[in-house]
Amino acid sequence: MTVHVTGSGQTAFGELWHESAESLARQAGQEAMEEAQVKPQQIEAVFVGNMLLPMLEQRAHVGRIVADALDLDCPAFRSEAACASGGMAVHLAILSLLAGHFTTVLVVGVEKMSDVGADIIGRGLMGAGSEQEQLQGATFPALYGLMTRLYQQTYEVSDEMMAAQAVLTHDHAYLNPLAQFHQKITITDVLKSSMVADPIRLLNASPVSDGAAALVLSTRAQSKKDRVVVAGMGEGGDCLDYAKRKAFTSFSATKVATAHALRQAHTMIQEIQAIEVHDCFSVAQVVALEDLGVCSPGTGADWIATGHGRVGGNGLVVNSSGGLKGCGHPVGATGVKQIVELYRQLKGVCGKRQVDSISQGLAHNIGGIGATAAVTILRRQS
Amino acid sequence: MTVHVTGSGQTAFGELWHESAESLARQAGQEAMEEAQVKPQQIEAVFVGNMLLPMLEQRAHVGRIVADALDLDCPAFRSEAACASGGMAVHLAILSLLAGHFTTVLVVGVEKMSDVGADIIGRGLMGAGSEQEQLQGATFPALYGLMTRLYQQTYEVSDEMMAAQAVLTHDHAYLNPLAQFHQKITITDVLKSSMVADPIRLLNASPVSDGAAALVLSTRAQSKKDRVVVAGMGEGGDCLDYAKRKAFTSFSATKVATAHALRQAHTMIQEIQAIEVHDCFSVAQVVALEDLGVCSPGTGADWIATGHGRVGGNGLVVNSSGGLKGCGHPVGATGVKQIVELYRQLKGVCGKRQVDSISQGLAHNIGGIGATAAVTILRRQS
Repeated sequence: MTVHVTGSGQTAFGELWHESAESLARQAGQEAMEEAQVKPQQIEAVFVGNMLLPMLEQRAHVGRIVADALDLDCPAFRSEAACASGGMAVHLAILSLLAGHFTTVLVVGVEKMSDVGADIIGRGLMGAGSEQEQLQGATFPALYGLMTRLYQQTYEVSDEMMAAQAVLTHDHAYLNPLAQFHQKITITDVLKSSMVADPIRLLNASPVSDGAAALVLSTRAQSKKDRVVVAGMGEGGDCLDYAKRKAFTSFSATKVATAHALRQAHTMIQEIQAIEVHDCFSVAQVVALEDLGVCSPGTGADWIATGHGRVGGNGLVVNSSGGLKGCGHPVGATGVKQIVELYRQLKGVCGKRQVDSISQGLAHNIGGIGATAAVTILRRQS
Repeated sequence: MTVHVTGSGQTAFGELWHESAESLARQAGQEAMEEAQVKPQQIEAVFVGNMLLPMLEQRAHVGRIVADALDLDCPAFRSEAACASGGMAVHLAILSLLAGHFTTVLVVGVEKMSDVGADIIGRGLMGAGSEQEQLQGATFPALYGLMTRLYQQTYEVSDEMMAAQAVLTHDHAYLNPLAQFHQKITITDVLKSSMVADPIRLLNASPVSDGAAALVLSTRAQSKKDRVVVAGMGEGGDCLDYAKRKAFTSFSATKVATAHALRQAHTMIQEIQAIEVHDCFSVAQVVALEDLGVCSPGTGADWIATGHGRVGGNGLVVNSSGGLKGCGHPVGATGVKQIVELYRQLKGVCGKRQVDSISQGLAHNIGGIGATAAVTILRRQS
C-alpha cells in the first residue's frame, strides 16, 4: 500500500490578530481539499495536530473543533505531542491509511498563540517539559540555552558560527510569501539582538506564531505522473527531563526516528535534496544536522557558516520554508507545514526558493527538548 | 494481519487522593505488561488516552509523561477526543499494528480529576462542548438534561424507567472490586437523590473519578488457544453543537461507528454477549442501546427496566464492569477500561460478574454529547 500526498494548504504564519484557530484551520484545510480535488464528503477522517488550545482557551475535543470548522462530519482524531504534535498527527494519518482503515484523510496542524500574554504562553509551552523542570522554572529557552553553552564549549564553536543558522533561515523566509519574517538579517544583527537565555539571543530563537497547515493523504493517487508519496517514516522517544539524558549535545530520539525512516525508504541522507529541520533555537538546527547524519558531531554550525544548506547552492537545502525561526512556529502546525513545504518542493511550485532537481525530501519535527521526534521522507515518483 | 489483546491492567477507580496521573498510569501499564509477559524493551510505542491533564495541571506532552512514568524510551502518541480519548487511543494503536509499523504496543488511558475543585473540573469538562455551548454556560449535565427531557416526552418514558439504568450499573459495580461504588441502590434512591439538571438526578449521573487502564496489543499472539483478537472497529463524528443536530434522541456518530465495526467483524449485534456502553448519564445508556441496535427507538429504558442486560440473565449483558455510572468515569481511562473489561470477560476471569458463554464483546465510547464515537469488537478464538 502506498500513501500519496494529493493536496496541501497553508495559511500565512505570523501574529494574526484577526484569525482564530477555527478560521486558520478552515483556510488551510479547504486549500488542501481544493488542491487535491476532493469534496468534503470524500474525507473519511481528520487528524489534527494541536498542542495549546486546551491550555490557552480551555477548549478540548480539538479534533472535532477543526472538523466542525470545515463542516466535516467524519471521525476526528487529535494528536498532542508538544511541538511534535503536527508531525505525529501526520504519522497517525499515514498509519490509518496503511492499515486500510481509511482511503482518503485530511491532516490539519493548527495553533493560535498570539491572543494571550507572554506569561500565559510561556507557562503553556513549559507544559511540554518535565514536571521537575517546570517546578524549577526552567523554560525552553533556558534549557536550550544550557544545551547551546555546552555545545559551544565542547566543540569550540563561536557565537558567530551559531548565528549563521538564523541568517540562513531569514534568507529563505525572505523568499517565502507565507513566512512570518521577510527581512534579511546579518551575523551582526544576531549578535546585537537582546539576550534571551545566555547564550541564546532573540534572533537565535523561533517566534510565537499563529498559523495552520494541511495535507490530503490518500492511498488513491491523483495523477499518473509526478506523484508524491510517503517513502518512509519513523518516531523516537526520550525522557522529558534534559538532565536525565545520556547525551546532552545530541538527541537520541532524532537518531532513532531517522534510522527507521531511512531504512523504510531504502535511502540514505546523502540521497535527499531538501530537509526541513526543527530549528526552534539555533542549536536545535545544528544538532539536528548532526543527528540526521548530514554532518559529523561538532561540525553542524561550521557546515552552515561555510555556506552550505542554501537554496541555489550545489548541495542539500536546509529549511527552504524559512524553518521555525524564519517562517514561524505555530506549534501544532509546524510538523504539518514542514511536509507541506517538501510536497510543494517536490511538485516544483516553490518559485524563488525552489530546490533544483529534487526527488526526495525529509522532515524532522521534535517535541520538548528532543523527547519526541517524528521523521518523514517524501519522494517524487515520475 | 490480526491484532491480539495480550495483557490488561486497571487501577481501582475512585477519588484516589494519594495517587497522581503518573502513579496511576504506571500501575495499570505495569500490570498489562506483566500479564502480557512482555518486557519494557519489547514495547515499541505507547498510545495514551487523556483529556484533562493540560487543562487541570498545565502539563502537556502527555504521551511522554506516561512513557516516562513507565521508564519507556519508545515513541509516545497521545489521543485527545474528550471522553472518547481512550477509545480513540486504542483505535490508533490498533491502526499502527495493522499498518505493520509496530508489532507490540501499550495503550494507557488515564485521568486524575479529584485534585481540583468542582468549578475547575466543570469548566474543564465543558471544554468538550461547542464554544457556543460554553459561552452559554451549557454544561454536560444541562445538555444531557435537555436530551433526557426530550427523550422521556417523545417516548412517554417515566423517571422510574430511566432510573433502572442506575440500579443495574450499581448492581454490577457491586460485583467489581475495582469499581468506585460498592453500594446497591434502588429506584427510590435514584428518584430521591438530589436534582442536578432536571430531570437528571445525582444517581443518574456518572461521578468524577481518578483511574487508569491499560492494554498490551500485539500482532504476535501470546498463546495458541483462547486468544482474544480485535474483530472490528469503527469511528463516527458529528458536530459539537447539540442544537445543530439532525436528531436529538439518538447519536448518528454511534450508528456510523457501530455499522462499520459490525461489518468489519462480519457479525451482528445479536451475536454479541456483552457490551460496555458509555453511560455518562442514564439517557446516554438508553440511547446507546437503541443506536447499537439492541432495542428499537424508544424502548431502551423499558428493556432495562424489565430486567434485561443483567449478569446471570439469559441474554446480552450491559456494562458488567459497572459502567461509567457504577465503576467510575476517569475520562481518558474509560474507553480503555471498557476494552479491559471485555478482554477479561473473554478470558473468563471476572469472578462473580462473569458473563456466561461469551465469545464476542463490544465497547462503545463517546466524546462530547455524541460528537465522537469509537466502537470496538473483541472476539475469543479458541
